[in-house]
Amino acid sequence: MAAAATPIALAELAERLGCELLGDGAFSVAGVAALADARDDELSFVRSHRYLDAMRASRAGALIVPPGIDPGARPAIRSADPSLHFARAVEMLVVPPRPGPGIDARASVAPDASIDESAAIGPGVSVGAGAQIGADCVLHANVSIYAGVSIGTGCELHAGVVVREGSVLGDRVRLQPGVLIGGDGFGFLPSDSGGAQRVPQVGRVVIEDDVEIGAGSTVDRATLGETRIRRGAKIDNLVMIAHNCDIGEDAIIVAQSGLGGGTRVGRRAILMARVGAAGQLEVGEAAFVGARAGLHGDVPAGTRVWGSPAVAERRWHRENAALRHLPGALRRLRAVERKLGLRPAREGPAANDGPREGDPRGGDEV
Amino acid sequence: MAAAATPIALAELAERLGCELLGDGAFSVAGVAALADARDDELSFVRSHRYLDAMRASRAGALIVPPGIDPGARPAIRSADPSLHFARAVEMLVVPPRPGPGIDARASVAPDASIDESAAIGPGVSVGAGAQIGADCVLHANVSIYAGVSIGTGCELHAGVVVREGSVLGDRVRLQPGVLIGGDGFGFLPSDSGGAQRVPQVGRVVIEDDVEIGAGSTVDRATLGETRIRRGAKIDNLVMIAHNCDIGEDAIIVAQSGLGGGTRVGRRAILMARVGAAGQLEVGEAAFVGARAGLHGDVPAGTRVWGSPAVAERRWHRENAALRHLPGALRRLRAVERKLGLRPAREGPAANDGPREGDPRGGDEV
Amino acid sequence: MAAAATPIALAELAERLGCELLGDGAFSVAGVAALADARDDELSFVRSHRYLDAMRASRAGALIVPPGIDPGARPAIRSADPSLHFARAVEMLVVPPRPGPGIDARASVAPDASIDESAAIGPGVSVGAGAQIGADCVLHANVSIYAGVSIGTGCELHAGVVVREGSVLGDRVRLQPGVLIGGDGFGFLPSDSGGAQRVPQVGRVVIEDDVEIGAGSTVDRATLGETRIRRGAKIDNLVMIAHNCDIGEDAIIVAQSGLGGGTRVGRRAILMARVGAAGQLEVGEAAFVGARAGLHGDVPAGTRVWGSPAVAERRWHRENAALRHLPGALRRLRAVERKLGLRPAREGPAANDGPREGDPRGGDEV
Repeated sequence: MAAAATPIALAELAERLGCELLGDGAFSVAGVAALADARDDELSFVRSHRYLDAMRASRAGALIVPPGIDPGARPAIRSADPSLHFARAVEMLVVPPRPGPGIDARASVAPDASIDESAAIGPGVSVGAGAQIGADCVLHANVSIYAGVSIGTGCELHAGVVVREGSVLGDRVRLQPGVLIGGDGFGFLPSDSGGAQRVPQVGRVVIEDDVEIGAGSTVDRATLGETRIRRGAKIDNLVMIAHNCDIGEDAIIVAQSGLGGGTRVGRRAILMARVGAAGQLEVGEAAFVGARAGLHGDVPAGTRVWGSPAVAERRWHRENAALRHLPGALRRLRAVERKLGLRPAREGPAANDGPREGDPRGGDEV
Repeated sequence: MAAAATPIALAELAERLGCELLGDGAFSVAGVAALADARDDELSFVRSHRYLDAMRASRAGALIVPPGIDPGARPAIRSADPSLHFARAVEMLVVPPRPGPGIDARASVAPDASIDESAAIGPGVSVGAGAQIGADCVLHANVSIYAGVSIGTGCELHAGVVVREGSVLGDRVRLQPGVLIGGDGFGFLPSDSGGAQRVPQVGRVVIEDDVEIGAGSTVDRATLGETRIRRGAKIDNLVMIAHNCDIGEDAIIVAQSGLGGGTRVGRRAILMARVGAAGQLEVGEAAFVGARAGLHGDVPAGTRVWGSPAVAERRWHRENAALRHLPGALRRLRAVERKLGLRPAREGPAANDGPREGDPRGGDEV
Repeated sequence: MAAAATPIALAELAERLGCELLGDGAFSVAGVAALADARDDELSFVRSHRYLDAMRASRAGALIVPPGIDPGARPAIRSADPSLHFARAVEMLVVPPRPGPGIDARASVAPDASIDESAAIGPGVSVGAGAQIGADCVLHANVSIYAGVSIGTGCELHAGVVVREGSVLGDRVRLQPGVLIGGDGFGFLPSDSGGAQRVPQVGRVVIEDDVEIGAGSTVDRATLGETRIRRGAKIDNLVMIAHNCDIGEDAIIVAQSGLGGGTRVGRRAILMARVGAAGQLEVGEAAFVGARAGLHGDVPAGTRVWGSPAVAERRWHRENAALRHLPGALRRLRAVERKLGLRPAREGPAANDGPREGDPRGGDEV
């Protein structure tokens, strides 16, 4: 499938991208698509020589190609970074539908809320007392904004988003559907009366400029002070950011990761999918945490860790590889013991190894 | 607790199920319940001989029993598959409440949206420009449908569901509360300006007939082209399906699993709970992926894998069992070395094993 | 940042907390904050001697201090449990904004629903036929309550919450934004026609008094009978509770955990973050399950388990520590074999260990 687009001449596209034009600049680009799907009026792109066969088989009418790749008869744009320039071309060609300015008749806006006249407030949106919504914001259907929330300019909040009281959003923040901002942090203390004493969660959430958060993710308010997502951080779907976390500038947190209370993630750090962090720990600047890692301590800046509990990447590879050899090694150890007349207390495991386990369907793992 | 039901005579039930009636066909079945909870006017079922004691203790007025089990004096239905026929009996007996057709006065429907007159559109529902909603659909309260969405016949979208622009749903699709369809895929490129360049997400989501998706799950739109959930696939709660995934017919994906961009899941494959897939990989037809597995490569059709990184099921069992014996084996290895006069560089681990680790509360895992 | 508060004199605070006042009781407490952030009109607290330096550096105007710590010239409250008494002080000082009673003009309430006149029903809320909502409840914007739901007194349901038909909530239940109650359980049977037979989910959800559930969590209705969350249980964000689970009194389930169908969690048990339970198993009273554990069998009362598959905590530590030494042990085993003239079938792993694996980026884990 191709995405619908407003046609642009290839020459104009090349100029706006700051790239060299090859061939017919009058070619009208009517859409964008992957090589395999593109029609003859669409633009596609070639990442590297690995895609040469796909390029030749493609019906794409125009291409963005890296140095050293000959687009043949097709008009093209030369780029040192085809993925990047294709992404920019798509932004120019495909302008997503944007509701016009104004407040829908079925929205509910508190009398003292302040909404810029250029903002688009959809049906079913609720805006609480004293909330402020800046220029060029789009709030899609059924978004709920509590009292005292402040939202900057150019933000897009998709349907079903909730932003609880006192939260602050900067400029150009993009929240995908169902993002939940400002829920109470999870804190309970043993009480002298026997039950649990709730720890009141009276802090707030601050989300800086150019942050994007994926569908269904949650960011809890601070117990005291702030939970802060810094400028440019990108957070994927179903991620859980607990109270008092501090996510660094341009950090990336991939889907279904979860950060315990007070986790600090450094600038440009990357947490791959399904990472868990125990809280009150620091992931250093530009550190890389592999998918499904479990963090119980700090990750030094610039390092790479994997596994649960997480260890340095090299060690993790070594241990995984070693584990593959363990069953054989146990057999070889028994052979050595037999040769030396060192027989284990009973055949197989030594007596103090405990009962055999390991079948997850067995029901006796404890 | 028993579920309320429209009473049906047992003989009629047996006939509609295509099963043999045992005893009094005039018995009026007033409800359904598990053996332990059933009242004397309710129907229950017996899976196998393991439930004989529970059957005898039950007050259920009627039973569905497999061959070889004597229901005694109670009227019953004989079935080679009691679970299946009980499920069908429940469908006949318990008809869930369904709102009547029509558009609630508090819904918001774009003038050019097309809604079949048999559809039920609840309060707070928003339907965008050009959207199409087929016959017998039910959209519960506060569902948000963006512009250009197409929904077939007989679909049920529970409260809080969001379906973003251009998504396509087939017939009899059932979305549990809070399902989020069509959010932007998560794609960013390093930019020459230092920050991140957003990769525009201009593809769509297609959900075919008879798909069910559980509460709070997210399905992202494609970067280019389509994210597709094929006919009959069943997806549980809080599952994350990234951009450009392709989920095969009748595949099953259990709760809290997450599939990275471009994951292809074959027909009738089963992913148990909390599986993570790295993306751009293929799970073959009828493959089985155990709970909490981490996939970094293809899973061949028909195979079974477990673990993270995932390995073949038999190997995974062997490695888990071996790991149980590892602490003892290390002691035995030291005994062997002492016997041979091969002392390690220092007592315990060899010098190049690095510092001792492994306590997740220790904070020095890196 | 400090949380805004209604000023109270320190003497009154001490009296209401039942604690000893030290110094100037007329000091007016205008807010609360952590030591590092507090202003000179705010109250903070000192947990232990470890915070002495932070206390001295703090500008806090008043403190709650444990026995043995001298607050110096500052007015203070003496407490044997400063965290607990500070939490209570915050509750007294910071009263979260609460919408006034009444039904918003943009809410949709079925004619036969019963709503106590002291309840606050926000804009966009939908309340279905026959639903009952007790005194002092707050339903924030865009909450969806299906038919036949019963909600006790003093509950707070945040924006975007969905409660499906027939669910029962006790008193003082607090649901954070986007909590999804009563979705269908995930049950399908192989059908004789080749496809999947849906197992109808005709049970309900019961949530007892004083339960709190975090943002985006889901609790599915029972297949038959009940899914029950018992008095005082606390559930964090993005947790998945499947059909027919039974969560014990005062149990704690931390973020992103998931419980398969029919899991029973005992009174005061604790499941840390990202735990997965296979279903149809029991976690005993006051058991502790470590973060990211995978449960496939019962956890006895009072025990502590970690790992996946979960094992007793001590064993898990021992195995993790042993795994750290495995690569070195394999080298040492080869040295032993050479010394004994026992050469492995080929250098490195024994022949029947299979191919080398372990690199998750390799794509050959199966």
